[in-house]
Amino acid sequence: MANFAEVATQFVQFYYKQFDEDRKQLAPLYRDHSMLTFESDSHAGALAIVEKLGSLPFEKVKHSVSTLDSQPSGEHGGILILVTGALHVDEEQRPMNYSQTFQLLPDGAGSYFVYNDIFKLVFG
Amino acid sequence: MANFAEVATQFVQFYYKQFDEDRKQLAPLYRDHSMLTFESDSHAGALAIVEKLGSLPFEKVKHSVSTLDSQPSGEHGGILILVTGALHVDEEQRPMNYSQTFQLLPDGAGSYFVYNDIFKLVFG
Repeated sequence: MANFAEVATQFVQFYYKQFDEDRKQLAPLYRDHSMLTFESDSHAGALAIVEKLGSLPFEKVKHSVSTLDSQPSGEHGGILILVTGALHVDEEQRPMNYSQTFQLLPDGAGSYFVYNDIFKLVFG
Repeated sequence: MANFAEVATQFVQFYYKQFDEDRKQLAPLYRDHSMLTFESDSHAGALAIVEKLGSLPFEKVKHSVSTLDSQPSGEHGGILILVTGALHVDEEQRPMNYSQTFQLLPDGAGSYFVYNDIFKLVFG
């Protein structure tokens, strides 16, 4: 099994690259029992989650990761991740700070899916 | 079983109250296999975690929670929490923004302990 910190780093890189290129293609990363809380608005299941992400009111988006920390999340082989970063949308000059936490779980086929996803903008 | 969101809210209130009053008394909230990542510095086990928290270079501290989001974290009854907030230390006039994620697990005796704890200052 790959080191949890390596999996976390690879996941985060892949996730935001895919999000920024075409966020409607994120569905395979979620499952029917996955959860997303986006700015305190909760959605369950890959379909509802990707519908929510697709409906966000911006076209161009770029995530810049500032920090990434991870820990094993239990005996089931999960990985907990906390990302802090900045979000650049459309023609806005000023990025928005955000924090996001993910729990990845093994999918039984050698890979991982997103079980928990909580996204929050940070105003300082 | 109490609602996960209520447990999360009660836990966060209790945790920061205890932290701000006397953070050396937080040990009972952790277990031997608990993990803390504090500003990317990792510690495992209640003893090491509380030693780290006790060694932080401030005396007076006050956490102000801005947002709290939670989700069930799996079939084992865990709860995932993302907090964003501000930290006031000693005589510093300007608070520091932080994000912190916890995973609580049931302790088998009707309560919860902190399994995962990742704390990160956010610079905007």
